[in-house]
Amino acid sequence: MKFNNNNVDISPMAIIGNNVRIGDNTTIYDNVEIGDNTIISNNCIIGEPLADYYHNSNYINPVTTIGKDSFVRSHSIIYSGSTIGDNFSTGHRVTIRENMKIGNHCRIGTLCDLQGFSEMGDYCWLHSNVHIGQQSKIGNFVFIYPYTVFTNDPHPPSNICIGPTVDDYTQIAVGAILLPGVKLGKHVLVGAQAVVGKNVDDYQIVIGNPAKPLKDVRELISRETGKSHYPWPYNFERGMPWKNIGYENWMKTNNNNESL
Amino acid sequence: MKFNNNNVDISPMAIIGNNVRIGDNTTIYDNVEIGDNTIISNNCIIGEPLADYYHNSNYINPVTTIGKDSFVRSHSIIYSGSTIGDNFSTGHRVTIRENMKIGNHCRIGTLCDLQGFSEMGDYCWLHSNVHIGQQSKIGNFVFIYPYTVFTNDPHPPSNICIGPTVDDYTQIAVGAILLPGVKLGKHVLVGAQAVVGKNVDDYQIVIGNPAKPLKDVRELISRETGKSHYPWPYNFERGMPWKNIGYENWMKTNNNNESL
Amino acid sequence: MKFNNNNVDISPMAIIGNNVRIGDNTTIYDNVEIGDNTIISNNCIIGEPLADYYHNSNYINPVTTIGKDSFVRSHSIIYSGSTIGDNFSTGHRVTIRENMKIGNHCRIGTLCDLQGFSEMGDYCWLHSNVHIGQQSKIGNFVFIYPYTVFTNDPHPPSNICIGPTVDDYTQIAVGAILLPGVKLGKHVLVGAQAVVGKNVDDYQIVIGNPAKPLKDVRELISRETGKSHYPWPYNFERGMPWKNIGYENWMKTNNNNESL
Repeated sequence: MKFNNNNVDISPMAIIGNNVRIGDNTTIYDNVEIGDNTIISNNCIIGEPLADYYHNSNYINPVTTIGKDSFVRSHSIIYSGSTIGDNFSTGHRVTIRENMKIGNHCRIGTLCDLQGFSEMGDYCWLHSNVHIGQQSKIGNFVFIYPYTVFTNDPHPPSNICIGPTVDDYTQIAVGAILLPGVKLGKHVLVGAQAVVGKNVDDYQIVIGNPAKPLKDVRELISRETGKSHYPWPYNFERGMPWKNIGYENWMKTNNNNESL
Repeated sequence: MKFNNNNVDISPMAIIGNNVRIGDNTTIYDNVEIGDNTIISNNCIIGEPLADYYHNSNYINPVTTIGKDSFVRSHSIIYSGSTIGDNFSTGHRVTIRENMKIGNHCRIGTLCDLQGFSEMGDYCWLHSNVHIGQQSKIGNFVFIYPYTVFTNDPHPPSNICIGPTVDDYTQIAVGAILLPGVKLGKHVLVGAQAVVGKNVDDYQIVIGNPAKPLKDVRELISRETGKSHYPWPYNFERGMPWKNIGYENWMKTNNNNESL
Repeated sequence: MKFNNNNVDISPMAIIGNNVRIGDNTTIYDNVEIGDNTIISNNCIIGEPLADYYHNSNYINPVTTIGKDSFVRSHSIIYSGSTIGDNFSTGHRVTIRENMKIGNHCRIGTLCDLQGFSEMGDYCWLHSNVHIGQQSKIGNFVFIYPYTVFTNDPHPPSNICIGPTVDDYTQIAVGAILLPGVKLGKHVLVGAQAVVGKNVDDYQIVIGNPAKPLKDVRELISRETGKSHYPWPYNFERGMPWKNIGYENWMKTNNNNESL
């Protein structure tokens, strides 16, 4: 019942791939490009025009790209001028503003608020209600949990905008705050509700407000296996490219071992 | 003006009770059952299909039940496969995913995000923007305040999913985080922004990150009466079944006194 | 493509100014008054009826006012009975409940949840996802950052409702919680994730849980200028009435110098 072409509005200037399904009550604006087999569910806005649209009769909507095999859940708003890779998926009511660059296989959870002008790599999973301020840089395989905020103004209000940088494999738990310009290394684990104001080295666990290093993440024991759970790619493969082959084999195959 | 039958889509396989009102721009999917006198306001999705719907042409939508005398405010999304009792109400833009079991007289505030596969008893009130992860268990008369999160993965990302358990009458203040598997007793008071990683005994107040017991909740003095405010049912009756008769009488009448 | 008069429903009892544009899928209820040149974007609800509407056939919708030159972004819900000034703007999916008084030049970010029965002055900027409980009082030039909560019940649940009071120019950083009845002076800076339970004097920085004074805000050095950044009006003018003339000149011109 979702795809009745009921109250659907698709610009003739949009480029829609093969086997794309567009849900009821959804609007697709000019210069949106949607890859093959992608589903845009009901009540979505894709290619939301920028502010200039409302005041300039010559406004041209920037190109918005969503890759193939993607799934945008209902009530999401994706602004024009963002570039999103393949196998993308969202929860409901996601907001993605302009000038976001999002890699392949990323998941953006319900109610996430991406303020644009930021980038993330491949296989990033943002759980519900994550807020990413402008000028943030997120690597690959970064998972971020609900109510986490990436900030960018060191002394509000000011004209400075310096977002956090987060390197590959890092996990940022519920309710954490990354302060402006902070840099997190690879395989970092940020504890629930940590307020991170200083750079964090690879493999460090940081907790508290202000966040301080607790120990090496590799010392954390899994409740499941009784062994070290981290680096987590050795122990978690759901949805990951190393599924069924294991992280070690995948690394060899892909010659990616410099990234661990 | 809300009930013009404007852009309303109701499955012929839905069972709609007597005197039910469905708002404009609302969609009711297959196998939804709505009790008598319930209002589903505008722009809602009830019985949102599960992921399999998009890929399986033989998909059958699980039964979704919303009891009688309920009120779902606008822009809410309730997935198929949830069972919700009578006198239910929501704020706006609530998301309730599949396999939730919700008792009678529950209130779910604006922007709440219930991830499904969880249960709550009767008379639970969730204020705005509460996030309940999967595998959570919530008793009766539990009130939860904005931006609280129930988590379930002890070392993310992992394959473990063990939600918190919260017993009757417990109050969880603004911005608290319950860590995976934690158990809270009856009449607990969790302070604002507490991060609760250890089990909490009945009647304890816990505060801080990490949360530690502060004192017995019965020692807290009401600004209103100058006497102990807790156990709160003796001092708060709005919307409660003991309204106008008092908690003590209600307990006697209902022979519920074992639950205090 | 936003203004096709597609699925738009405007009450004949609404008063719509000159050059107002109403987006597709938007509903304007009885007794809404919208000032000249204002844009109400798509999928909005303006003048959302109060609870009595659903049960009383003689219900009369209270007057809702939105001033001129305003811009309400998509999917926002503004209840009837609120009074909002000129040059107002919102992000997406804002909820503003009844009996809010909002001054001129205010900005309310995406997903903000204003619970009504509160007031704010002029030039207040609420970033995304701010929650303002009932009975809050906010002055002029107050900026509030994401996931901040204004609370009002000192020992939940109770019948007491005493919101926070925030004076002019104060900045409240990400994830802060203001506890019931707390009063913040002018030019206060509340740190990220502070839990503020005690009154704060003018010019104080408070941080932590529970929040404690750290130092005078005027001691904070700007990363941009190397000099004190606060009082911030001397160093930030974007969108402010002192733009291009400077705060000092503006103060003299407006004879407002008592407010610093």
